[in-house]
Amino acid sequence: MARWEPNARERLERAALALFVEHGYDATTVAEIADRAGLTKSTFFRHFADKREVLFHGQDMLTQLFSDAIRTAPPAATTVDCLAAALESAAVAFTWDRHDLAPQRRAVIAANSELQERQLLKRARFASAMADALRARGADDVAAGLAAEVGVLAFSTAYARWAAPENRQPFGEIAHAALHDLQACATTLGK
Amino acid sequence: MARWEPNARERLERAALALFVEHGYDATTVAEIADRAGLTKSTFFRHFADKREVLFHGQDMLTQLFSDAIRTAPPAATTVDCLAAALESAAVAFTWDRHDLAPQRRAVIAANSELQERQLLKRARFASAMADALRARGADDVAAGLAAEVGVLAFSTAYARWAAPENRQPFGEIAHAALHDLQACATTLGK
Repeated sequence: MARWEPNARERLERAALALFVEHGYDATTVAEIADRAGLTKSTFFRHFADKREVLFHGQDMLTQLFSDAIRTAPPAATTVDCLAAALESAAVAFTWDRHDLAPQRRAVIAANSELQERQLLKRARFASAMADALRARGADDVAAGLAAEVGVLAFSTAYARWAAPENRQPFGEIAHAALHDLQACATTLGK
Repeated sequence: MARWEPNARERLERAALALFVEHGYDATTVAEIADRAGLTKSTFFRHFADKREVLFHGQDMLTQLFSDAIRTAPPAATTVDCLAAALESAAVAFTWDRHDLAPQRRAVIAANSELQERQLLKRARFASAMADALRARGADDVAAGLAAEVGVLAFSTAYARWAAPENRQPFGEIAHAALHDLQACATTLGK
């Protein structure tokens, strides 16, 4: 019978990130992660499909949040309003109690080409979800495609700024500023 | 001793695409491709590292063309001028003698999730090369990132239009029109 383990998921995530940083992602096993967290392998597998999911488990949730925010924005919302709503909705995933994990996660991904590919695919999926949601609101293909790339660029820029160790600004504010910067660049490109 | 085989590369590419369409990408072996082309496996491996490279061998050349065109554009060229130069430079890869291969290639990739991932990564690499080249000209990170995404969107849109079986317009013209459409969308987003 499975025991209830307080904070098992977070303990596993912290143990995994610490080991990935110390020994490298490839060299770390699920058994070592479970051991460092003081839990069993079977507890690990109740929370994560594999060690890669420790790094990418937020992807499905964010995709859903982006998509829902765009689809449920008021009918009068402009494309940029929709992107702003999508970015705002992601703020729930970037709270202060997770801030110290971000530099570790980024370092682990930066050190491994397979994980970098996974990260690029994650970005492409976000763009695709945003473009689908914008098309569902009536945007044409070109406009939806461009707006989705702007949304994903705003998200990545905001995440990098939020995750910086010295940052104390909340994600939502940073994301709004990033979107605003991109809008200014879009104006310049449009000339 | 390797014999010189006239048009070996193109024969192998055409044989591979035909087999991928007929039997599926996963089910096709290099031996079957060589056999269909009337060549040997060792001739195949002199031209391609593996069967996946038959579909993606253009990636390195295009990355280099995009990057070179942006880096060597005149100092007074705007960002959009640089993107236009990059797209124009790609036209050498999309000549009429290759037009009939494009629908086959697209069908093969659309049918296979691993190849779709590879295609997304290829796009991400194009964007990264364009952004690097624009930064080398002095663009800031945000502007370079956005412009690169616009460049890649223009490229993908143009490729899809060029590859349509009924298309008779040259790639360069189509790419210019796609870039122009995206510029108009950028203006709308910037408002």
